[in-house]
Amino acid sequence: MAGRAAALDAADELAALRDLFVLDEETTYLDGNSLGALPRHVPDRVRDVITRQWGRLRIRSWTEGGWWTAPERIGDRIAPLVGAGPGRIVVGDSTSVNIFKALVGAVRLLDPADPARDEILVDATTFPTDGYIAASAARMTGLPVVPVDPDLLLGSLGPRTAVVLLNHVDFRTGRLHDLPAITAAAHEAGALVVWDLCHSAGALPVGLDAHGVDLAVGCTYKYLNGGPGAPAFLYVAERHQPRFDSPLPGWNSHADPFAMDGEYAPADGAVRGRVGTPDILSMLALEAALDVWDGVRLDAVREKSLALTDFFLECVEAYAPKGRVDSLTPAAHAERGSQVALRCARAPAVMEALIARGIVGDLRRPDVLRFGFTPLYTGFADAERAAWVLGAVLREVPPGPV
Amino acid sequence: MAGRAAALDAADELAALRDLFVLDEETTYLDGNSLGALPRHVPDRVRDVITRQWGRLRIRSWTEGGWWTAPERIGDRIAPLVGAGPGRIVVGDSTSVNIFKALVGAVRLLDPADPARDEILVDATTFPTDGYIAASAARMTGLPVVPVDPDLLLGSLGPRTAVVLLNHVDFRTGRLHDLPAITAAAHEAGALVVWDLCHSAGALPVGLDAHGVDLAVGCTYKYLNGGPGAPAFLYVAERHQPRFDSPLPGWNSHADPFAMDGEYAPADGAVRGRVGTPDILSMLALEAALDVWDGVRLDAVREKSLALTDFFLECVEAYAPKGRVDSLTPAAHAERGSQVALRCARAPAVMEALIARGIVGDLRRPDVLRFGFTPLYTGFADAERAAWVLGAVLREVPPGPV
Repeated sequence: MAGRAAALDAADELAALRDLFVLDEETTYLDGNSLGALPRHVPDRVRDVITRQWGRLRIRSWTEGGWWTAPERIGDRIAPLVGAGPGRIVVGDSTSVNIFKALVGAVRLLDPADPARDEILVDATTFPTDGYIAASAARMTGLPVVPVDPDLLLGSLGPRTAVVLLNHVDFRTGRLHDLPAITAAAHEAGALVVWDLCHSAGALPVGLDAHGVDLAVGCTYKYLNGGPGAPAFLYVAERHQPRFDSPLPGWNSHADPFAMDGEYAPADGAVRGRVGTPDILSMLALEAALDVWDGVRLDAVREKSLALTDFFLECVEAYAPKGRVDSLTPAAHAERGSQVALRCARAPAVMEALIARGIVGDLRRPDVLRFGFTPLYTGFADAERAAWVLGAVLREVPPGPV
Repeated sequence: MAGRAAALDAADELAALRDLFVLDEETTYLDGNSLGALPRHVPDRVRDVITRQWGRLRIRSWTEGGWWTAPERIGDRIAPLVGAGPGRIVVGDSTSVNIFKALVGAVRLLDPADPARDEILVDATTFPTDGYIAASAARMTGLPVVPVDPDLLLGSLGPRTAVVLLNHVDFRTGRLHDLPAITAAAHEAGALVVWDLCHSAGALPVGLDAHGVDLAVGCTYKYLNGGPGAPAFLYVAERHQPRFDSPLPGWNSHADPFAMDGEYAPADGAVRGRVGTPDILSMLALEAALDVWDGVRLDAVREKSLALTDFFLECVEAYAPKGRVDSLTPAAHAERGSQVALRCARAPAVMEALIARGIVGDLRRPDVLRFGFTPLYTGFADAERAAWVLGAVLREVPPGPV
């Protein structure tokens, strides 16, 4: 397998991008689906933001340094990576806060058109925050949340469905849901869809505009490598923007913020999704990090992602003792994101041993080993090494109930 | 006046702190009430966060680097500056988002105790975001907002008052409101109070615990010098924490976040105010910036602040042509924050000319010149120079309607 890994790496059109990131030989970093690696040029860019813009220009940087327009400017940088036109994405706040804006905003886009639409369907296996925020949005809008198994979603859509909140890729299993088909079916049923792109933005083509998605929220610190806790993004389809009515109308989304008017008048476009003063240091680190995407074809990213996860699964099959791990990640390419999740007895001990040997994945309690594959900097040799060490660890850690 | 300024600076016990900040001789920076100056040691600390913690430790920094607990740890650093005990403040999200949490949370603390309490009283002269967010909270909780003149507030409190949202210091005029008396009167009336400390945190003693404040929100990029858009903070009084019910319940406020449980179970204490993944770069820049407060007496800050603003007003009186400016900032110390606001015809042209000559204040449209005094780095010579240049500019810019 090592020979095949070398051949695959040699033929990889994205291989040179690895040098743009800070990585080390001792570590095989397969946790980019939790925190993307550091692009090499980011520290100097942030230093300039701090020492020159904050330190010397100070308040003038809000205008001269482009701080004020950063949320929409960086949104426009992310837009092509998720298939959105300019002016539809704004960056700021956490994923959780943006899900609140998107869900309440979606309910208000429907209301008062059809009061019989009184259910918010939410992926029952969702990342917890989405569920907590959906419950809060439901409580505050008066519409109940109905948890649905994403595989049964199409059968759950109906005349009572107001809004659907789904994850494009499941955070635990790595399952990719069929965004075009589900979006079309929801629209057919008269509902709106909010997509959570946390595990797909930067990992595969999304096609927000092309598939007529209504609203979407995404994370920038996973496959977009924006840095720890980098601000999230909010997409509002162009057709919905004039009626988008955010539950968090801050002065940054006012049509004339510096009028400091007591009456709220929302700005046009994606800017309407802004709230308060943006966290400039985190935001401009993200802006710098996005430079690594210059000239990268998303189709190439997707092809490599599938090849990497295929190869990793093959290596695991070859190296791991039989019956010790069980892939939760679908074998079918059309149903796979850019991670591999392995169910494994004694997963905590196994992941601890892997990390001690430089294979950095992560654990999703109680029994899931997650390995993220970031095509910009993960190579086939990484996949092979990780599987080889996993095999060795599994031989050392006896299977057991804990 | 220049001689007096020199004498006052020579006697200033805080004078040495100025060297902790990046300032330049050409500029008199009086806009620290909008964006605090850069503490000298912050760039190196942020560089370490980026290159070592993000770059080399990567995901391990969430535990080993203390990232996960940063919101409550930094909250505890801010706590003594606003008179709060440990475990009552959490840092994260923007001021606007925190006002939403605090206001909705306050309404839920009352409800269902007294359904006759159906009004949210809001400072009619508030910073716009507070008003917009209050209107949204009102819309989503079903309680209307009643705008009140803060000077008439005591007469507006009554059996229908549910929650009061007030600014400790008015952003435009610099007027300091009587937090102890208003809080006591609101409690007497059976209401809860949410204080916005944006223009008082770090500028004067607040005494949140001592005065029995219910909830408070504050900004960290003004007098706390945390950097552009640094995350805000939320205070929840200890007695309210067990029932504090946030409208933004994210996975970071779950009692066991990494259980990734579909059911929300809130954490105890201030942590309940967290939402999503914190923006680590902005947050740890703030943490570093707070080092400048080590050993600083807040009473000394307040004394110097009043002496600076007194002296500036005296210099303006001496240098400015008669009748050209009119102070909106109260003369009484008990009613003054740490800024001076001057109403002035042709204020935009005057501020532009001031900035061109290195006197950096800011403009609040249409006719207010604002000058912020940060006792940690502003000296009496700065106040004197600013007033002198203001006098010169006013002689050059003829008064007029525009």
